[in-house]
Amino acid sequence: VTGGAPHRVVVIGGGFGGLFALRVLRRAPVEVTVVDRTNHHLFQPLLYQVATGILSAGEIAPPIRDVVRHQPRTTVVLGAVTAIDLSARTVTAHQGDSPHTLPYDSLIVAAGSETSYFGHDQLSRWAPGMKSIDDALELRGRIFGAFEMAEAESDERRRGEWLTFAVVGGGPTGVEMAGQIVELSQRSLHHNFRNFDPRSTRVVLFDGGTSILPTFGPRLAAKTRRDLERLGIEVHLDTLVTDIDDRGVDVRFGDGSTRRFAARTKIWAAGVQASPLGKTLAEQSGANLDKTGRVRVLPDCSLPGHPEVFVVGDLMVLDDLPGVAEVAMQSGAHAARVIVRRRAKGGDGPGPPLRYRDLGSMATIARFKGVAKIGRIEIAGFVGWVAWLVVHLTFLTGFKNRVSALGHWTVSFLGRSRSERTITEQQIVARLAIEAQEDAGRAV
Amino acid sequence: VTGGAPHRVVVIGGGFGGLFALRVLRRAPVEVTVVDRTNHHLFQPLLYQVATGILSAGEIAPPIRDVVRHQPRTTVVLGAVTAIDLSARTVTAHQGDSPHTLPYDSLIVAAGSETSYFGHDQLSRWAPGMKSIDDALELRGRIFGAFEMAEAESDERRRGEWLTFAVVGGGPTGVEMAGQIVELSQRSLHHNFRNFDPRSTRVVLFDGGTSILPTFGPRLAAKTRRDLERLGIEVHLDTLVTDIDDRGVDVRFGDGSTRRFAARTKIWAAGVQASPLGKTLAEQSGANLDKTGRVRVLPDCSLPGHPEVFVVGDLMVLDDLPGVAEVAMQSGAHAARVIVRRRAKGGDGPGPPLRYRDLGSMATIARFKGVAKIGRIEIAGFVGWVAWLVVHLTFLTGFKNRVSALGHWTVSFLGRSRSERTITEQQIVARLAIEAQEDAGRAV
Repeated sequence: VTGGAPHRVVVIGGGFGGLFALRVLRRAPVEVTVVDRTNHHLFQPLLYQVATGILSAGEIAPPIRDVVRHQPRTTVVLGAVTAIDLSARTVTAHQGDSPHTLPYDSLIVAAGSETSYFGHDQLSRWAPGMKSIDDALELRGRIFGAFEMAEAESDERRRGEWLTFAVVGGGPTGVEMAGQIVELSQRSLHHNFRNFDPRSTRVVLFDGGTSILPTFGPRLAAKTRRDLERLGIEVHLDTLVTDIDDRGVDVRFGDGSTRRFAARTKIWAAGVQASPLGKTLAEQSGANLDKTGRVRVLPDCSLPGHPEVFVVGDLMVLDDLPGVAEVAMQSGAHAARVIVRRRAKGGDGPGPPLRYRDLGSMATIARFKGVAKIGRIEIAGFVGWVAWLVVHLTFLTGFKNRVSALGHWTVSFLGRSRSERTITEQQIVARLAIEAQEDAGRAV
Repeated sequence: VTGGAPHRVVVIGGGFGGLFALRVLRRAPVEVTVVDRTNHHLFQPLLYQVATGILSAGEIAPPIRDVVRHQPRTTVVLGAVTAIDLSARTVTAHQGDSPHTLPYDSLIVAAGSETSYFGHDQLSRWAPGMKSIDDALELRGRIFGAFEMAEAESDERRRGEWLTFAVVGGGPTGVEMAGQIVELSQRSLHHNFRNFDPRSTRVVLFDGGTSILPTFGPRLAAKTRRDLERLGIEVHLDTLVTDIDDRGVDVRFGDGSTRRFAARTKIWAAGVQASPLGKTLAEQSGANLDKTGRVRVLPDCSLPGHPEVFVVGDLMVLDDLPGVAEVAMQSGAHAARVIVRRRAKGGDGPGPPLRYRDLGSMATIARFKGVAKIGRIEIAGFVGWVAWLVVHLTFLTGFKNRVSALGHWTVSFLGRSRSERTITEQQIVARLAIEAQEDAGRAV
């Protein structure tokens, strides 16, 4: 037994990286503090289901405190990290105007990424991202609200604008959002409206690359594209979105031609940038940043020159690993294991390199239809969907969340309904105020 | 078969009164339009469970459109009713600035009631009511947010303010809220915090009358009071709330003495007033209003002098019937039956009088503990709780909602957890901004 003050570990971020680090540190002889801007972990891969009314917010966002309730040596701080001082070894977290200084002996930075509009942040007003519960609830209000606006609209052309949904970004989030909007309009909203048939809904998907789901390989990507088109989704690849406003999207195609798509509801699933904490770390340590602001780390996930600081998950650059949940989980757990091993053996020498085990990528396109790439194995269709179901149920945090999500899925996949379609009055009022403002602007 | 234009029925409000009217009109040879300010029906008796994290919004708020999806002759209009013209027989509904004029042959006004602060509307900022999904989500953010603020607070006295919850109003909503906050703090939040024991939470319940749950009769009221006090809730009867601010509640007791209770979270479950549409109807028809703005109707629920207009539910005064869900259901259905009967028999003569069948009142105090008064039968404890469970499950709208609510109840009653604890970032930012503003105000 070593005497003296306990070893203090600060974990920034309660996402996949942070949570898997906390899990490894559970029984370690260290004092852990985890800081997050929100009160909940977020199971981001299912966020699109909250936005489209299948799951409730609570089902994919368990409170971090509740997840670590049986770890008495783990403290949760609700606050935004505003500074890291590598030489003083402190993290500053703000709750509003009140700063909290958290000293550390080891630090795991799992601050993740945020939506990037590639320098055009004004687009966020018309095309919310898909990174937080707030985003998903905002989009839920906009999606179900658009059908309400369509029902109230008597002009055919304007109604068509309300019934057009533009998704920017052909990664898993964009593909899953596009697929779910079609499912919603074709199955769940059946018989709900009197002035139009919700099956006339139009979904347009844009991506700048030459393929959707590029990480799934060309065969699955092509198959998914065919599946999406069979669902009626218009897929436009090699397309640059040049502007977005209240009424639509302007794009430039690969051949230089331009076109405007009228669409009232826009979803931005196109890009992410690293948390600004990456820059803070780089400035103080001289570490390299890539063009999205991620920090290049050593093979054991530590910051060059600072063996006591680890950068994991979406904020980390290592061996071309992609910014996916699985990398965050394994790198978060790895960093924690290096800390535990050092406590056992002493010293602060480099840890073993992270050996990433690729457990595969998966996405659902529609009910009973998914794609999965597990190593060299490529699965599509019903089996791909089952694989998706099993993996997502396994990783969904907390027993209760699993039971409850499974219940909602049964209802939603076998039946036709979506339980979470509540639009708040606040959202209705906001929507109508924006409409009125725009109409006034146009009239001038 | 009668020729000519179809008979048009407009129903204002998609609450219990409106929904039960729609159900009766389902197979009638009439064209129905239902107008509501929100997109959902609200199962108000379970709203406190949304506020305290047991149920999700969608479980108690099914979209009205979805409820009537198999009634092709029923149209749903999302809009606020701004005018009723009894002589022109039209209703005007606004979606933002766009008015919709809805002509009617028969009208059912089921516009319900709203929170009343007895002329002190400024109190709503510090003590939200409990009448809408927006209210419940706001309170959810404040309740779970208060525990977060307590964890971050180092000053013992200030932390105590965050851990004190004041409930104004001793009817079922107030009693159930108070009971659930205790359950939450004693069971669900166990092991969640490091700087305080959530079991130190203090709940204070105020009521202006001489008894809580007065409609349950003196014996059950006294028993419930004892149960609440055994849970640790401070019950103050015969108490007038004179002011509420950010930090607490000022009250005057029956003996004239005054006292301030420091409490950061306040819930207003004290009073309701009728929808302002009652006044509109009274001005045009000469009908009498009671002091809360409800309209006195004829025994068949119709407006005096206007046999084609019915006022039901919380907006109606008839035979001293209370403003409860059951009255709304039965009066809504009754009005619709009068319309159907007239269509079958012709004429617009008075319908049979509403014969109210009192199916009883019930409330839960805590897990496995409820009170129910069914006719002369008074039940308390576990049996009262089972009665509550059965009745609420029966009336919960929609098969899926029942299954899903039962699932959440099983988890929440048998286990310890609450699935819906997500605080949005918007709520956190709003909370902290108010704090900062107040602290600045105090410093000046």
